[in-house]
Amino acid sequence: MDKTVGVLGGGQLGRMLAEAANLLEIKVIFLESGNLSPAKQVSNQYDHIDGSFKDPEAVKSLAAKSDVVTIEIEHVNTDILEEISKTGTDVQPHWRTIRTIQDKYAQKELLQNHGVATAQSLPLATASVQDLEKASAALGLPLMLKSRKEAYDGRGNFPVKTKDDFKAALDALGSNKEVYAEKWANFRIELAVMVVKTKDQVLSFPTVETIHENSICKLTYTPARGVSKTIDKQAQDLAKKAVACFEGKGVFGVEMFLLEDDTLLINEIAPRPHNSGHYTIEACPVSQYEAHLRAILDLPLLAKDLELREPAIMLNILGGDSEDSHKNFARQALKQRRTKVHLYGKGKARKGRKMGHITVTAPTMSEAEEIIQPMIDYVDKDKPRATNSMASKSQEQPLVAVVMGSDSDLPVMQPGIAILKKFEIPYTVRVTSAHRTPAWMAEYASAAHSNGIKCIIAAAGGAAHLPGMAAAYTHLPVIGVPVKPTIGDGMDSLLSIVNMPKGVPVGAMSVNNSTNAALYAARILGVGDAGIAKRYQQYIQDCREEVREKDRRLAELGADAYAEKYLAKK
Amino acid sequence: MDKTVGVLGGGQLGRMLAEAANLLEIKVIFLESGNLSPAKQVSNQYDHIDGSFKDPEAVKSLAAKSDVVTIEIEHVNTDILEEISKTGTDVQPHWRTIRTIQDKYAQKELLQNHGVATAQSLPLATASVQDLEKASAALGLPLMLKSRKEAYDGRGNFPVKTKDDFKAALDALGSNKEVYAEKWANFRIELAVMVVKTKDQVLSFPTVETIHENSICKLTYTPARGVSKTIDKQAQDLAKKAVACFEGKGVFGVEMFLLEDDTLLINEIAPRPHNSGHYTIEACPVSQYEAHLRAILDLPLLAKDLELREPAIMLNILGGDSEDSHKNFARQALKQRRTKVHLYGKGKARKGRKMGHITVTAPTMSEAEEIIQPMIDYVDKDKPRATNSMASKSQEQPLVAVVMGSDSDLPVMQPGIAILKKFEIPYTVRVTSAHRTPAWMAEYASAAHSNGIKCIIAAAGGAAHLPGMAAAYTHLPVIGVPVKPTIGDGMDSLLSIVNMPKGVPVGAMSVNNSTNAALYAARILGVGDAGIAKRYQQYIQDCREEVREKDRRLAELGADAYAEKYLAKK
Repeated sequence: MDKTVGVLGGGQLGRMLAEAANLLEIKVIFLESGNLSPAKQVSNQYDHIDGSFKDPEAVKSLAAKSDVVTIEIEHVNTDILEEISKTGTDVQPHWRTIRTIQDKYAQKELLQNHGVATAQSLPLATASVQDLEKASAALGLPLMLKSRKEAYDGRGNFPVKTKDDFKAALDALGSNKEVYAEKWANFRIELAVMVVKTKDQVLSFPTVETIHENSICKLTYTPARGVSKTIDKQAQDLAKKAVACFEGKGVFGVEMFLLEDDTLLINEIAPRPHNSGHYTIEACPVSQYEAHLRAILDLPLLAKDLELREPAIMLNILGGDSEDSHKNFARQALKQRRTKVHLYGKGKARKGRKMGHITVTAPTMSEAEEIIQPMIDYVDKDKPRATNSMASKSQEQPLVAVVMGSDSDLPVMQPGIAILKKFEIPYTVRVTSAHRTPAWMAEYASAAHSNGIKCIIAAAGGAAHLPGMAAAYTHLPVIGVPVKPTIGDGMDSLLSIVNMPKGVPVGAMSVNNSTNAALYAARILGVGDAGIAKRYQQYIQDCREEVREKDRRLAELGADAYAEKYLAKK
Repeated sequence: MDKTVGVLGGGQLGRMLAEAANLLEIKVIFLESGNLSPAKQVSNQYDHIDGSFKDPEAVKSLAAKSDVVTIEIEHVNTDILEEISKTGTDVQPHWRTIRTIQDKYAQKELLQNHGVATAQSLPLATASVQDLEKASAALGLPLMLKSRKEAYDGRGNFPVKTKDDFKAALDALGSNKEVYAEKWANFRIELAVMVVKTKDQVLSFPTVETIHENSICKLTYTPARGVSKTIDKQAQDLAKKAVACFEGKGVFGVEMFLLEDDTLLINEIAPRPHNSGHYTIEACPVSQYEAHLRAILDLPLLAKDLELREPAIMLNILGGDSEDSHKNFARQALKQRRTKVHLYGKGKARKGRKMGHITVTAPTMSEAEEIIQPMIDYVDKDKPRATNSMASKSQEQPLVAVVMGSDSDLPVMQPGIAILKKFEIPYTVRVTSAHRTPAWMAEYASAAHSNGIKCIIAAAGGAAHLPGMAAAYTHLPVIGVPVKPTIGDGMDSLLSIVNMPKGVPVGAMSVNNSTNAALYAARILGVGDAGIAKRYQQYIQDCREEVREKDRRLAELGADAYAEKYLAKK
């Protein structure tokens, strides 16, 4: 904590790094032009350096004042980092790491050499139609043509759909540039994971779903929506494996594609805090910025420090048409509840420039989505609708699994399903028979928790083993609905469900009462979800009013007239 | 957001105010001696003023550069605030408010005139034994003798136990000072509420339990432990009523006593952000600092912005014997998970000075207590044990209510209660009969949710109405345990519990199976509490191993020997 950290660059990432450093009294000095760059504004001391982070002399001055030198942008001069490193300055991450990552083809080649899944890529010997032709023969069309260096926020990428695009692509990227071709990835969703490499560990933050618009990050959702816990963990494992290939310490932003067949591929890696990790400031006990400082300074860091406190959505504030567009956005955002505004102190807005971001945290993703929607609408108001439909509609994670031994039980369960819809509780309905598909039933119940299910409603008739067997394979609460069989009144089903041995509880409902099963699920989820609890309180109120209304009518009409008018119809 | 805020003072409260202002690009300038006070360190611009916040000329210079002037310490010169206010500077809160609050007796008098509950107080005409004698005749002994002005962190307070203390008390407070006597409050616990007064609303943050040591705030717990939701709300209402008595806008820290009989009394009010509100930085969507800025600048603020995201504990870092004691503390704190460290940039530590604080947030208070315990131990290592036992043990909020119609049901419920203990789930056990105490049963079930209960286990035999009636009065999940009556096998109890009408669900267990009821409660709570879910997974594992062990023995001994050895004993 007593070491001085020198940073190449002083933009918004540096600003948020300084905010984290201030809390720990860690001295951070920035090399950036001017005396009031975004980072320097929040760090008042005399040691900042006014200059370009590409200027070797300025970097040497920074090194002379610093115990550790790090970066907030990777487009730096790695020759000078190599030089200061060799004369004793601690550079983190390692200059070789920064050099490799600067060249996106070299980055991919290194990952492939370490067996890390990434899109197949081929360098072009020259930026010529002939060489692009060769690459397309190997990789197929469409493909992505990419600049090897100085690419960010989509600049330096060109999608090549057909041979007719060859010339335009090469022109767009500049024919004197080094370029490479990348196999087209048909992804279902883009994910990102912030990874922290410390002196002896590789740790990860949760998996984030990222939504890009015009190749610029627009929104991030954490946890990623419509992604199972299994894939979430696979993404973190892949990201950690990728970062482990690189030397040095610090935070790395790992962007990934999740393909239609649930394969994960690394897209690219940034050797620094990253836009897709802004959400960590509010949503995790330790932010990516503090994690970066702890990693490069060998301060303690635990996996539990990187866990998600609450679901979070981040929306970037990009410059609009007027110079104060970002301030107008912020004024609107302050009207929304639970919305944290971060402006970067960049002065007047420029169209498309990242001027700030907002982060919404809430107890549930659906509440966070509801809160942020007005600000997404605000951003989109002058635009054609986003082409990526994920941006506007959620693929909701089912919270309740309704399982039944046979599709013949479905009619009994439909009133319950209607209740789940009424309470806006996302659900899934499946057939998993304890007798006809015992292994599948066991697999489904065992995986339910890691698939994000919070509660299981199980319906069964006769021997009615499904609720109890499901309870045997999970620690989630299981609600049993006895289904009346074709023979008998359903007492057999009820007793099979309710008489569980000590140690494995099932909550039993009355025969065929799926309505109560769904209401009970709503009560259970309401324990941790204030929105559902509130809807339940309203439901109780509505029920009371309905009964009072019936009583009023009955008193008014008398029993006979009432029975004729209201009960005869049934 | 485009207005400039001038602040009298530039210590840690100013620093945290600046951190909030930076996020919104709100320009804040500080009047404080030196160019690198805690607040100025995190706010790099040319307009700060080097001077004393008591110097009229310096205050006028600040006013000339500011649209709104506010304070981070109340011991300012209100004459000059009155003057700049009358010449057009917006001073918030109102200078009259600051002047009244500076004089603790005037503060109490104003509250009493507005009918706000506070300890009875009498001013002493002179700081003499005779006048103290008179006051003690009116208020009784013990009493607190307090300085009217310039008192903070316990300075200016002297407990007067007997007449023998009169002279010492007057000497301690200084005989030339204005003093007043306050009736002794036998409090069970100290509470605090941060209140935000905006141009048209009075809003409050959650109620905080504060632990003082040597009259300095040591710890805060939010929500307050061992305090019902009803008292939590009463405390917020009282704090809002108190703050509504004062003119102007901004955040106010309201300290209260909760007496043995659950009466609440205002202790004192600070017209600014407060130590007991530090926790809001991590634990609420909007912190007390951002709330203060939004209030004085007429920016939007919603009640929902002040809600608690997660239980939080704050521990102050006080200066110790060495000049880097706070840094040593911080290094230890970084080793604890979920622990946010805030150092204030005050340079070398002085004994007892507030050098920083840490805040732990966690999904449950018990987890937060577990996390922070090593740091409380670290603070207490060289001290005699704290006299206030609240500092080291939690009065846990019951999460499960076990209710029964008669104490004769208790033996049936004891195995379930043992399971709740095993899972470390705080519970309460009550007798509330649906038939013998219908009104009390209704009252208890109706209030359960607002008393912090998450789940009800209800046991009943025979007509067995209790589970269903409890469910009718609450939206919490109710688990029913049919109790076998003296006549019959308990089928009557089971059917009375399970056959609930559509609309009011109860989860039924088998007859006398309180074990499963408690396990089911653990499954329900485990949906939102990862600690309980983890313990449940371990429980399943243990059960499996136990059964496997029995199977191993049975295979080894053969059925006859096994039955003789293991079953005969039972």
